[in-house]
Amino acid sequence: MTDRQLIPAAGGVGLRLKRGESLRIIDPEGGQSGDLMAFAQDGSERMSNGRTFDYNGKVYLSTNDVLWSDRSNPLLTITADDVGRHDFLYASCSLEMYRIQYGVTGYHPNCHDNLRAALRELGVEADSLPTAFNFFMHAEVAVDGRLSLLPPKSRAGDSMVLRAEMDLAIALSACPASTCNGGAPPRPLAFEILRG
Amino acid sequence: MTDRQLIPAAGGVGLRLKRGESLRIIDPEGGQSGDLMAFAQDGSERMSNGRTFDYNGKVYLSTNDVLWSDRSNPLLTITADDVGRHDFLYASCSLEMYRIQYGVTGYHPNCHDNLRAALRELGVEADSLPTAFNFFMHAEVAVDGRLSLLPPKSRAGDSMVLRAEMDLAIALSACPASTCNGGAPPRPLAFEILRG
Repeated sequence: MTDRQLIPAAGGVGLRLKRGESLRIIDPEGGQSGDLMAFAQDGSERMSNGRTFDYNGKVYLSTNDVLWSDRSNPLLTITADDVGRHDFLYASCSLEMYRIQYGVTGYHPNCHDNLRAALRELGVEADSLPTAFNFFMHAEVAVDGRLSLLPPKSRAGDSMVLRAEMDLAIALSACPASTCNGGAPPRPLAFEILRG
Repeated sequence: MTDRQLIPAAGGVGLRLKRGESLRIIDPEGGQSGDLMAFAQDGSERMSNGRTFDYNGKVYLSTNDVLWSDRSNPLLTITADDVGRHDFLYASCSLEMYRIQYGVTGYHPNCHDNLRAALRELGVEADSLPTAFNFFMHAEVAVDGRLSLLPPKSRAGDSMVLRAEMDLAIALSACPASTCNGGAPPRPLAFEILRG
């Protein structure tokens, strides 16, 4: 029931959740953030940070908060959370981002490609991805709107649990961006599917 | 060169901008907010709040800030701004939002449908819209992440100017949601295309 699987460092995985099943995401070593993208299983609805901010009335999400779709349907409810701080403001890191912000010229592993590839294996062809839910990523909005990235608050073994509110295609990526992980090199994450 | 056109109260319009041209958005009566959606003219790139927050390092945008695409290309640069506070956190109001938050049962004019219809007339068929840029909308993020909506800061005649950084298909909507407009009934907005 709780077969633990790895998200390789800087890599991604795809999985399906039936309505009522839950996903536990684990940070085995601590201080590592990741990206979660959720689509309705048939690809007809997708995660929306704008709807989620509106219906929750806040930008920082934790236990009892709901991740909403662009069609205003609940996708996932956070039912447990050891960490308490996640980000839904930043787009997934992408090859272009590594070029612009890190000066990378060749290929660089990135959450955007990881998420798209994982979704494609689930039969969801998403040419464009909305802003992902960046679990364990510690972004802070100052009073004047300035953003800063701090090391994740997750300690070794910390996890969060999300319950599916509809049948979902989900992609997870262990983020390779050092600024999102306290300057550390990429580490793996893990997950379990809780079938209830 | 500066033919002023109306965005009807609770309605939308579509327009094309060539790279280098600018769009002036005007609040003729004051206190009215609107939604702006931008796609590359061929539909291949779309506005992204997540990329925009990342590359500007902040959530409140004004003069000299750039609105970025999901492909990490600049779409629009804000070159003038009488108002100084806009929102890029909330998804456009939609029929589902009016059902959930206002208890509306029949049809209700909404920015989502206005933007989609305007884009369709420009040849851009967007089944799913990303979070729009909500100009003149006054959202505030508290230190704990809580969101609040205040009356727009725009006074009668105030405007902002955005310069196109590529050829664009743009949709504008005069928002019908009373909470975004200080509780007032929907009023028109206006715009001018500055061909340089």
